[in-house]
Amino acid sequence: MRNKYSIGILGATGMVGQRFIQLLENHPWFEIAWLAASDRSSGKKYGEAAKWRLEFPLPDRIANMTVSSAEPVGAPKIIFAALDSDIAKELEPKFAAAGCAVVSNSSAFRMHPEVPLVIPEVNAEHLHLIEEQSWRKESGGYMVTNPNCSAIGLVVALKPLEERFGIEQIFVSTMQAISGAGYPGVPSMDILGNVVPYIKSEEEKMEAETLRLLGRFEGHQVKPLSARMSAHCNRVAVEDGHTECVSIKLGKKLGRAATKEEILAAWAEFKPLAGQQLPMAPEQPVEFAPQDDRPQPRLDRNRGRGMGVTVGRLRPCGLLDWKFTVLSHNTIRGAAGAAILNAELLVSLGKLEPVTAAATRR
Amino acid sequence: MRNKYSIGILGATGMVGQRFIQLLENHPWFEIAWLAASDRSSGKKYGEAAKWRLEFPLPDRIANMTVSSAEPVGAPKIIFAALDSDIAKELEPKFAAAGCAVVSNSSAFRMHPEVPLVIPEVNAEHLHLIEEQSWRKESGGYMVTNPNCSAIGLVVALKPLEERFGIEQIFVSTMQAISGAGYPGVPSMDILGNVVPYIKSEEEKMEAETLRLLGRFEGHQVKPLSARMSAHCNRVAVEDGHTECVSIKLGKKLGRAATKEEILAAWAEFKPLAGQQLPMAPEQPVEFAPQDDRPQPRLDRNRGRGMGVTVGRLRPCGLLDWKFTVLSHNTIRGAAGAAILNAELLVSLGKLEPVTAAATRR
Amino acid sequence: MRNKYSIGILGATGMVGQRFIQLLENHPWFEIAWLAASDRSSGKKYGEAAKWRLEFPLPDRIANMTVSSAEPVGAPKIIFAALDSDIAKELEPKFAAAGCAVVSNSSAFRMHPEVPLVIPEVNAEHLHLIEEQSWRKESGGYMVTNPNCSAIGLVVALKPLEERFGIEQIFVSTMQAISGAGYPGVPSMDILGNVVPYIKSEEEKMEAETLRLLGRFEGHQVKPLSARMSAHCNRVAVEDGHTECVSIKLGKKLGRAATKEEILAAWAEFKPLAGQQLPMAPEQPVEFAPQDDRPQPRLDRNRGRGMGVTVGRLRPCGLLDWKFTVLSHNTIRGAAGAAILNAELLVSLGKLEPVTAAATRR
Amino acid sequence: MRNKYSIGILGATGMVGQRFIQLLENHPWFEIAWLAASDRSSGKKYGEAAKWRLEFPLPDRIANMTVSSAEPVGAPKIIFAALDSDIAKELEPKFAAAGCAVVSNSSAFRMHPEVPLVIPEVNAEHLHLIEEQSWRKESGGYMVTNPNCSAIGLVVALKPLEERFGIEQIFVSTMQAISGAGYPGVPSMDILGNVVPYIKSEEEKMEAETLRLLGRFEGHQVKPLSARMSAHCNRVAVEDGHTECVSIKLGKKLGRAATKEEILAAWAEFKPLAGQQLPMAPEQPVEFAPQDDRPQPRLDRNRGRGMGVTVGRLRPCGLLDWKFTVLSHNTIRGAAGAAILNAELLVSLGKLEPVTAAATRR
Repeated sequence: MRNKYSIGILGATGMVGQRFIQLLENHPWFEIAWLAASDRSSGKKYGEAAKWRLEFPLPDRIANMTVSSAEPVGAPKIIFAALDSDIAKELEPKFAAAGCAVVSNSSAFRMHPEVPLVIPEVNAEHLHLIEEQSWRKESGGYMVTNPNCSAIGLVVALKPLEERFGIEQIFVSTMQAISGAGYPGVPSMDILGNVVPYIKSEEEKMEAETLRLLGRFEGHQVKPLSARMSAHCNRVAVEDGHTECVSIKLGKKLGRAATKEEILAAWAEFKPLAGQQLPMAPEQPVEFAPQDDRPQPRLDRNRGRGMGVTVGRLRPCGLLDWKFTVLSHNTIRGAAGAAILNAELLVSLGKLEPVTAAATRR
Repeated sequence: MRNKYSIGILGATGMVGQRFIQLLENHPWFEIAWLAASDRSSGKKYGEAAKWRLEFPLPDRIANMTVSSAEPVGAPKIIFAALDSDIAKELEPKFAAAGCAVVSNSSAFRMHPEVPLVIPEVNAEHLHLIEEQSWRKESGGYMVTNPNCSAIGLVVALKPLEERFGIEQIFVSTMQAISGAGYPGVPSMDILGNVVPYIKSEEEKMEAETLRLLGRFEGHQVKPLSARMSAHCNRVAVEDGHTECVSIKLGKKLGRAATKEEILAAWAEFKPLAGQQLPMAPEQPVEFAPQDDRPQPRLDRNRGRGMGVTVGRLRPCGLLDWKFTVLSHNTIRGAAGAAILNAELLVSLGKLEPVTAAATRR
Repeated sequence: MRNKYSIGILGATGMVGQRFIQLLENHPWFEIAWLAASDRSSGKKYGEAAKWRLEFPLPDRIANMTVSSAEPVGAPKIIFAALDSDIAKELEPKFAAAGCAVVSNSSAFRMHPEVPLVIPEVNAEHLHLIEEQSWRKESGGYMVTNPNCSAIGLVVALKPLEERFGIEQIFVSTMQAISGAGYPGVPSMDILGNVVPYIKSEEEKMEAETLRLLGRFEGHQVKPLSARMSAHCNRVAVEDGHTECVSIKLGKKLGRAATKEEILAAWAEFKPLAGQQLPMAPEQPVEFAPQDDRPQPRLDRNRGRGMGVTVGRLRPCGLLDWKFTVLSHNTIRGAAGAAILNAELLVSLGKLEPVTAAATRR
Repeated sequence: MRNKYSIGILGATGMVGQRFIQLLENHPWFEIAWLAASDRSSGKKYGEAAKWRLEFPLPDRIANMTVSSAEPVGAPKIIFAALDSDIAKELEPKFAAAGCAVVSNSSAFRMHPEVPLVIPEVNAEHLHLIEEQSWRKESGGYMVTNPNCSAIGLVVALKPLEERFGIEQIFVSTMQAISGAGYPGVPSMDILGNVVPYIKSEEEKMEAETLRLLGRFEGHQVKPLSARMSAHCNRVAVEDGHTECVSIKLGKKLGRAATKEEILAAWAEFKPLAGQQLPMAPEQPVEFAPQDDRPQPRLDRNRGRGMGVTVGRLRPCGLLDWKFTVLSHNTIRGAAGAAILNAELLVSLGKLEPVTAAATRR
């Protein structure tokens, strides 16, 4: 058995922290060695500090680990961060400055010009930005982020179309799951039998991140995609899985209008990580569901162990060119799984230090 | 007390039929004199034939009425129809031919060139089409329809903007309540904790009806609005109330871009039925909710006793000009209440025969 | 028009406070003159301080009232209190000591030997306890409470059976609505598609309060009913309305087993407030639903404008004598409406000072 | 690799049929060789005939199998049956008469004196009844059943207590998931934001089956447990997982009252299948959750891959001796998994013919 990388989780008790634990326990490359949370939790056993909310049962080993305080001293060199944005703003740079690779799910630095915002299937080349970071130069540490849960499914579905046809206009209206708001998150009085047509700052993030993710890395910086976009974001009574209605105007790369078959082929043939053997990567990043009434969160969110993005209902749009529906698991593909896949990519690119004896399973 | 019109309800046992009963019992102008349903129900007491699903308790008088078979003989001259489309296609012409005013909620004849599709606040002048109908000429009977529950809230919100600014493009993505599918309707296994991104034929109906409703009556026919439109229709876990995300490109009537204030004023000042004293008409057809996170179905669907349309979140759109959210009660404003308001308008226009002694309350 | 009593609401911004406003605005006897809440809210307009959560729209007059701080100075002499228990423990005695009649929905003093815990239809005679209170003797002020939302529906249904047959054993298992936990209350991640088989201290309260309410007032104190009882309390994904499965062993008052018809008659004939004209009192306190599958929260909670208790499914029990299902609206009959009915009873008993000119509508 | 038993599924398109497929695909002992359903489906590909409703994706191999008509000719000798009761009444005897081992989940023959109703951990010895069946004598075929989904969790939790202490009285009130009603099953209008306090015939089945399962096999027949029982059955808005509130009066086997620790030990030490290596058997049939607010369907239904029964909230009962909450997965432990575990037990007891070459994987 190959040695594993010791990793730590910052913000381990929250909803995304719990998904990190579910996905990293038994991960072939990484081993959870350190869990940190707020002062309220540190010093307690994880099983007492966290209100575990997943169907996946909390492993005994984890339940018995002691929660550390959120300080770099004694932390592993690879840190998965699942912090609220304002806390991330303060803590994440401390860990990067201390030499850690901070693989963050928070929104705090996603739009920072020197911090890569990455989906491995979409824009792995943005990782070059790491070398621009002052932390990298000084301590070897750096920061990498993954997008907002609403942007990630959309962008994975759009990337193969952008490559082949170009994209000029994007319209999206979301129906987002409650787990995206964390715990306690959305009060049940707000969402049971109801829709909330608003999520604070979500539309702005979704629009900015989408264009950045589809942008090019050129001369030490990222040039966002030059397309126009409009997002409507809504919360619905779904536990996990964001559903998004999308209309797009394609670009002129093909020199003519794309056919339905060409779009389906672009999705089916989109396998940018094929051959790389990243454990978290789904075999089929974008899967098309041919049924009239799919994708649906309950039935499709777990494709590719929660890392697959499902598209469906491809049909002509009365305003733009095509419309379709996108579905992805918001706390796996849209959060913890996204960060882990980023870390796997960093391993394969040699951006994480080789595993030493000290880091191996005791 | 003024005499009341005797009315009948075709399809009285379904969800919309039940709303008709709720809204017509104690109506100042109409009195339920006849209830008809399928052969399975006819001959039974209504209370036994119908599985009553409303919070409003079934009135004893109605519970004890005997359900008639769906034949014009013995039926009143005003018929509210809440039938499935394929049954409506067969039955409604029979009643019109027998001299009844058929005020229908079904989709069967909405796009028929001689049948008016009407929202009183929006296109009352389309009622001139009645005089084109052969039934009218032969028996005095005729047919009037109201739109699909997804179109009606949208169109009420768009009409004041069309009047002042013109509308060139419409994008809409809906989150529709389960009551729109009737009873038993949507299986709970399909919708609990889920979204279904598809409602059969709904997008086609919504697009066609919207343009027709906003169209002009010219030379004996209706010219649909010449605008482009795209609808995405979804079902969500909400009992009542359709929520719709809308983006629009305004026209050139103003000669310049409309401001936010001008749009709000157009909505606030939209009172086309003011002074007409129609009992079902809401005082304020379009009400703007200033809070960030409104409208919401649970909190706003009952404005104007279910006949008000609530708009909110007016903000610039990255693709078109403006975007906002619309909410309306799908079985009141979107079905039974819509038909009753149509009937009230017909009374005020003299299109229903004067009440005779025989039609008065016994 | 008769003059109205000025009343105040302590804890006006919470879920129960909102129900107080809904039920008191347009009340024929009471007029809301004063709203108080925590320091965070005081000084603001009510419409800004409260996150209104009811389908009933917030009246403009109330929205524009300024929230007072929770101090007796300047408060009316009749106070409806909807406070969390620990705050109630501190504040309610201050108001009673200042001469106010405190009509409380909180649990803080319900089991206090000198504070009456009252349901007007059940144990109005417990109000004699008021005269035992030191506040009453010193300032004229006093305190009256209503039961927990889970106890009240049960006790209204049991009282007529206790009167005619006696009750020896009570088994109850509840399915309680989320509104009982206030706002933000139950996180949606806990209850959507789920059941929580636990509500802190609820079973203890329900058991103790039920026996006290069914007890006798004897020699200046309340003797609880001498029966045995066991409660299981659960939270389910219902907005409003507590459903309770009940099994009971009747007593020996009848000298023989009671028949189903005798139980139904006891419920049907239970009208202890008949003739008293209390505005909040339902015409039929206990209504039997004959259908197999009733009562249900969505369909039955609003009977008697939310003050009726619905029973159904009366059938023999394999362990005790009879079993049935009880349903009542938890924030109307089980909270705000209960307190208002208590206040109405106090008026009719002359326990509230006569309305003076100063207290009348300005 | 050992050869596998070819098996068939009767009623393969329904909710329980789908769970059979999920649990049997990749089963180490069994291989799905034949799928049958109603005439409407037979002749079609399974993927077209069934409306797949599980999060587990439908395997391609199964999707492409042709659905057979429900006739014994050509069917394997081991049949898992997931039929509605009235159809089961007609079809299951035909398969038994044709020499098949019919392992049924239907209620049709559960209380038949010669048909064993079995939970392997509870009453394996009831399988002796097989030898009493005329089909067995004539063709070698026979019938075995598993209990109703509401009875099974309860009985697994009660069995270790019955063994050590005896049980004299059982009170249970259920909150049952919608998947128990199949598909389309419960209309969403009935259950969203609601509780239905009634499931047809469920209380009767639950009471009768519980006492039979806990009964002894004596002289060619089953003597039901001589205890008194009362069940209240309710439907709630939960996808999967039945939650049950239980109160019990223990018997006199111990000669004194059992302590809380003794009850916990009885559950913890209950491992009747230990050492038998049945693939479907959970390591820990009854698991105690120590948290105040557990078990909960969303968090606990998947313990032991859906075959574990979780108990919690053990506390004294005011009426009987003890009360607690039980949770089990209704379509795995309570249906398809129960039948498969029965079949595994039959294999281990030699009641299924040895696998021949013809039955092996092609």
